[in-house]
Amino acid sequence: MNEFELIHRLTRNLPTNAAVVTGPGDDCAVLDCGAPDRWLLFKTDAVVQDIHFTRDTPPEKVGRKALARCLSDVAAMAGVPTAAVVTLGLPRAFQLRPVEQIYAGMNRLARAHTVAIVGGETTTHPDRVLISVALVGWVEKNRVVRRSGARVGDALFVTGTLGGSLAGKHLDFEPRLAEARWLAEHFAVHAMIDLSDGLAGDLRHLLRASGVGAELLKTAIPISRAARERHRAGSGAEASGDSSPRPVGGKSPWLAALTDGEDFELLFTVPSKAAVPLLDAWRQQFPKLRLSCIGKITAGNTVIVRDKHGSQSLPEGGYAHFA
Amino acid sequence: MNEFELIHRLTRNLPTNAAVVTGPGDDCAVLDCGAPDRWLLFKTDAVVQDIHFTRDTPPEKVGRKALARCLSDVAAMAGVPTAAVVTLGLPRAFQLRPVEQIYAGMNRLARAHTVAIVGGETTTHPDRVLISVALVGWVEKNRVVRRSGARVGDALFVTGTLGGSLAGKHLDFEPRLAEARWLAEHFAVHAMIDLSDGLAGDLRHLLRASGVGAELLKTAIPISRAARERHRAGSGAEASGDSSPRPVGGKSPWLAALTDGEDFELLFTVPSKAAVPLLDAWRQQFPKLRLSCIGKITAGNTVIVRDKHGSQSLPEGGYAHFA
Repeated sequence: MNEFELIHRLTRNLPTNAAVVTGPGDDCAVLDCGAPDRWLLFKTDAVVQDIHFTRDTPPEKVGRKALARCLSDVAAMAGVPTAAVVTLGLPRAFQLRPVEQIYAGMNRLARAHTVAIVGGETTTHPDRVLISVALVGWVEKNRVVRRSGARVGDALFVTGTLGGSLAGKHLDFEPRLAEARWLAEHFAVHAMIDLSDGLAGDLRHLLRASGVGAELLKTAIPISRAARERHRAGSGAEASGDSSPRPVGGKSPWLAALTDGEDFELLFTVPSKAAVPLLDAWRQQFPKLRLSCIGKITAGNTVIVRDKHGSQSLPEGGYAHFA
Repeated sequence: MNEFELIHRLTRNLPTNAAVVTGPGDDCAVLDCGAPDRWLLFKTDAVVQDIHFTRDTPPEKVGRKALARCLSDVAAMAGVPTAAVVTLGLPRAFQLRPVEQIYAGMNRLARAHTVAIVGGETTTHPDRVLISVALVGWVEKNRVVRRSGARVGDALFVTGTLGGSLAGKHLDFEPRLAEARWLAEHFAVHAMIDLSDGLAGDLRHLLRASGVGAELLKTAIPISRAARERHRAGSGAEASGDSSPRPVGGKSPWLAALTDGEDFELLFTVPSKAAVPLLDAWRQQFPKLRLSCIGKITAGNTVIVRDKHGSQSLPEGGYAHFA
């Protein structure tokens, strides 16, 4: 049983109440907190040493990543993050200095996004560091974007470039908060998700939530320089000072873009007639960040990849923590 | 450096923003979420195997405890819990059945208090189970109770009986949510805290936050049956099927009541003139739950314990996870 199957099984019958607008299964839960025009967003996420970072990862970057992952989830709902609480699991013989550095990295990112850190806890955690962050934020009731709103004919977009995140981006990525706010303010974004498991896996999450399929244009998928360089470096990457906790292997750059994960870019859909105006307006607004139209939403539930040789069905993919 | 010193050091310079009404240092953070008449409450708490429960603790009780601790913190602010997210750290060779039992225990308690579970995550956690729960709730703006409001002359009250919680209560305690709501609705509760570290430690937290001292009447402190029985059983307790992860030793029942911790009762202050009316009304409202007036708030910053032999200053106490 992988992580997704376990979560599905555990979340089948969870307690709910009248405050729940959107329960488990989206990037954040959406709650009614009594505000007339806003929903509350609520999310938790954990990073664990030797899974999400290594013993050699600079502690500032570990703290930064722990918070950044949650911020990326708030971005995926087109929301604004407000405040976080932090649980820090530390080996008994912890050193004060790295703990302060973890907080320094987290605090710096929090300040950059005007996020408060309002509480937390330290507990002993044998052998390795664990950081669990829970975050609340808000979004206008008429502007929240879920995974489930994609419609047949929508154009499918992705920000940035994909693949090879473990070469460094997984520690340094910028949560796309400003971009998501701008998108939801200016365009009818039907569905959105942040890419944590990889395009192949997260696209399926969005499609399943929306009850639709997709057709991807292979040459339109934006492959990162890191994914291309890793491929050129081949299997020698593991031996050359690579601090990645996960094997990379000899994936093609294209497969890396689809399955490496931890891109933390936004995948979203808009009505097809908005595609060209969006690309034009985006270039004005975010000239340094690539935006790619990678395909369209189709009826059915399959993902078809088209290139000059024809079409093929995309195999199941995505990184599962328990796989 | 113990847990409290570490937290103090880490929380000296945390990022904040305009939404923060009360930051770290109380039972919950208090946030402005845009609702006209309510504040948002936000709290996180973790339980770890071999610290907060053992390998032999029934999984249902582990899940129950993880949530109950957060509910107790919301009670201490006189709030109403709304929704929780859960991070479950599991050894790689986890069994599905105990995981489902952990959730079953948590879900049952959540339903009893109309709390939704709206998300979560599973991650691998070598060697032992960890559960981190983050909770949001709300409280009327004019009814929130903090640790910091105690005034000289206030009467000091505690619910239930104290000590010996590890004999079983630490897994079965009832978060005092209904009691706290009733208190804040009917009486001018000046300050409140839930007893997790033990009366001696948590009283000091309340006093320090309020800038006051206290005088305790030794014979008024309600000692639990478990604390008395443990003392009678003496040091043989550890060998007699005791599943406690912490040593108990030969403490007097009185010292056990002050320092065992994990009582999860409410400690609070009201104006002295309200003391007798409160005791009368409480007996009508909660006939099965003891309420004890254990002393009064004084100027200064010391805790004096009075009995028929005279007065003495209470030594520093309380359970610190890193001590």
